[in-house]
Amino acid sequence: MSNPSLLILPGDGIGPEVMAEVRKIIDWFGAKRGLAFDVSEDLVGGAAYDAHGTPLHDDTMARALAVDAVLLGAVGGPKYDNLDFSVKPERGLLRLRKEMDLFSNLRPAQCFDALADFSSLKKDVVAGLDIMIVRELTSGVYFGEPRGIFEEGNERVGVNTQRYTESEIARVAKSAFELAMRRGKKLCSMEKANVMESGILWREVVIEVGKDYPEVELSHMYADNGAMQLVRWPKQFDVIVTDNLFGDLLSDCAAMLTGSLGMLPSASLGAPMANGRPKALYEPVHGSAPDIAGQAKANPIACILSFAMALRYSFDQGAEAARLEAAIQQVLADGVRTADLMGPEGGVPVTTSGMGDAIVKAL
Amino acid sequence: MSNPSLLILPGDGIGPEVMAEVRKIIDWFGAKRGLAFDVSEDLVGGAAYDAHGTPLHDDTMARALAVDAVLLGAVGGPKYDNLDFSVKPERGLLRLRKEMDLFSNLRPAQCFDALADFSSLKKDVVAGLDIMIVRELTSGVYFGEPRGIFEEGNERVGVNTQRYTESEIARVAKSAFELAMRRGKKLCSMEKANVMESGILWREVVIEVGKDYPEVELSHMYADNGAMQLVRWPKQFDVIVTDNLFGDLLSDCAAMLTGSLGMLPSASLGAPMANGRPKALYEPVHGSAPDIAGQAKANPIACILSFAMALRYSFDQGAEAARLEAAIQQVLADGVRTADLMGPEGGVPVTTSGMGDAIVKAL
Ligand SMILES: CC(C)[C@H](C(=O)O)[C@@H](O)C(=O)O
Ligand SMILES: CC(C)[C@H](C(=O)O)[C@@H](O)C(=O)O
Repeated sequence: MSNPSLLILPGDGIGPEVMAEVRKIIDWFGAKRGLAFDVSEDLVGGAAYDAHGTPLHDDTMARALAVDAVLLGAVGGPKYDNLDFSVKPERGLLRLRKEMDLFSNLRPAQCFDALADFSSLKKDVVAGLDIMIVRELTSGVYFGEPRGIFEEGNERVGVNTQRYTESEIARVAKSAFELAMRRGKKLCSMEKANVMESGILWREVVIEVGKDYPEVELSHMYADNGAMQLVRWPKQFDVIVTDNLFGDLLSDCAAMLTGSLGMLPSASLGAPMANGRPKALYEPVHGSAPDIAGQAKANPIACILSFAMALRYSFDQGAEAARLEAAIQQVLADGVRTADLMGPEGGVPVTTSGMGDAIVKAL
Repeated sequence: MSNPSLLILPGDGIGPEVMAEVRKIIDWFGAKRGLAFDVSEDLVGGAAYDAHGTPLHDDTMARALAVDAVLLGAVGGPKYDNLDFSVKPERGLLRLRKEMDLFSNLRPAQCFDALADFSSLKKDVVAGLDIMIVRELTSGVYFGEPRGIFEEGNERVGVNTQRYTESEIARVAKSAFELAMRRGKKLCSMEKANVMESGILWREVVIEVGKDYPEVELSHMYADNGAMQLVRWPKQFDVIVTDNLFGDLLSDCAAMLTGSLGMLPSASLGAPMANGRPKALYEPVHGSAPDIAGQAKANPIACILSFAMALRYSFDQGAEAARLEAAIQQVLADGVRTADLMGPEGGVPVTTSGMGDAIVKAL
C-alpha cells in the first residue's frame, strides 16, 4: 500500500517559515514511528498570484482534491491589498474550502497552562479553558448569490446573500453533535433567530438533528449574547456550532480569550472520500503576520498542532497526535519561548526553527 | 413655547422597573432645573402583544414619530419565545428603528472606575476604557430583501440579504466622523471587505466621507480581527463604525469587556426634524433580564444614563447631562450598590428604587 499523501501549501507571510518546522515533525514521524507520508508542496494566496496571476492555480486545486489531506500555512499581506477582489489571496483559500466542500471547521480554543498569564482575561476566567467551535465553512453569506456591487438609480449598492439549506445546516450540526459526544456532551448553537429567518431555520434543523443525540445537552443562544458570554465566562461552553460569518467572529474572539493565538490549530473537514478519510484541510488560526515575516520570530506551534489534528482526524492516529501534543507541552513547561510567548517571567528565547528543533528533541 | 415631549416605552421584564426610576430623575429636572418635559407612556414588545396582539400598535408608532424623543426600557422574554416571527417582541423595536429611520446607533463602552474589578478582563486592560461604537441601525441584513424561508427542490432554504447603498453608508459614516471630531479624532471602520462585496463598498464610502475630516485618523479592520482586538487591547480604539450585524456582536462584546453591563446606555439617532432635533430613541444596552424581573434587583443606571444621553443629544443640555452623570459617579463612589454591582469589597446594598432615590439625592 502506498503512503498517505499530504499537500503542503505554505502560502504567504510567516506561512513558509512555520511550515518548514512542520516538515521537520513530519520527517520525524516518518523516520521514528513508521508513519511515512508522500509530501508534495505548492503555492496558494499571494505567492500563487505572484507566480501565476491567480491565488490558486487549477492544477493546485486538482492536487488538493486528490490528496489525503492538505496543510496550509497562511494567506494574505499588505502587498496584495489593492488587488481586484477576484484575485485576492483570500479567494485561493475560499476556493479550496468550497471545492473540497469542507463544511465543518473545527476551531479549538484552548488555554495552555504555561501561558494563561498571556490572556487579557483574568487567570481564573481562562485557566484550563478548552472549548471547540464548529463553524460552517462552505455556505452562508460567504458564498450566497446574488452578490456584488450594483448600480441602482444613481448610486451603487453592495449586496451579499446569507443562504442556508436544511441539508447544509444538518450536516454541520451532525458533525458538531458527534464531536460533543466525544467531549463534554454539551452543545450550544448560536444564530440570530430573533432577527434573521435563516437563523430560525438554523435553530429548527439543529433541534431536529439533536433528536438523534439525546445524550447531548443542547442549548441555543443569540450570537450577540454568545459574544458576551464568551467574554464573561467562556468555561460555560463545551462545543459551539454556528454559521460561517458568526463563526468567523466568534472563533477569533474565543481564540483571543486564551491568550494563545500562536498556539491554535484548526481542521476543516468534508465528506468521506472513497478511502473513508474525510476531505480535509488543516491550518493555524493565526494569519500571515506580515509584520514579523522573515524575522525568524514566528511561533510554529499552531501549525504543528494543525498537523497533530491531521494525525487524529485524517489518519486515525490519535495516540501519535497525543504524543506530539505532549512533546509541545513538555517544551513549554521547559520554558522554551518564541518571542510571542516571552512574558515577564522570562524563559529560553528561541527562533522559529529553534522551537521546531526543541519539539523534535522532546519527541 | 410648549415643553419638549418624551414618549416612554418601558416594555418587558425589568424595563418597567428601571423606567420607574428614570421618571424620578425626569421629575427632578422638571422641578429643580426648570427642564420640564411632556411625558407620555405606551406599550412595546411583549407588553404590547399581550394588550393588542402586535408588538407595536400603529398608534404607538405614530406617537413615536411625533415626539421629540423616545425612551425605551427593554423588550422580550421567554413567554414570547414561541410566537410567530412577525409578532415577536423584537419586531416592535425593529419597527421603531426602521420607521423613525434611526440610522446611527451610539453605544459607549465605558469602564467605571468603581467597577473595574467586575470585568472578566485584567484591570489594566479595561480601567479607564472609554470607546464609542457607532452601529448602522436601519439597513443591512436586518432589513434586506429577499428574506424568508422558502421551498427549493425538496428542502427548505433560509435567506437573508445584506444590502447597503452608498448613501446609507455615507450618512452613518458622517455621524461617526462628527463624533470622532468631538472625541479623540480616531475612527476605526470594521467590515469583511476581504470576503463580502458589501464590505468593499462600505470601506470605499467611509474613505470618501473621511476626505471631509482630514483631522480624523481613519483606519480599517476586518470585523473578525476587530473582535480579537477588542478582547486583546480595547484601549487602542476611540470611535468604531460598523454595520448593523457586526455592530450587534461587536458592541455586545465591547459592553461585556467593561464589566459594567448594567451601566451602559445607548442612543439611536436619525435625521433632524423640523425643530432641528434629531429623531431619537434612547435605551439601555442590557436586555429585559427575565431572570431577575419583578424582584427589585435590577440596576436602573443604564436606563438613567440613557436619559442623560437624551439630554445631551436631543435637548442640547450637555451641562445637565454631565450633572446627572456626576451624581451617578458620586453614588457609586459612596458604595451604593444594586445586586449586580455587589463585589467582594461589599458596599451599601440597595434595591432598584433605592438606587434611583440615591441618585436623586446626589443631584
Ligand atoms: C482569510 C479569511 C478569508 C478567513 C475568513 O474570513 O474565513 C479568515 O478570517 C478565517 O477565519 O479563516
Ligand atoms: C433585541 C434585538 C432585536 C436587538 C438587535 O439584534 O439589534 C438587540 O440585540 C440589540 O442589540 O439592540
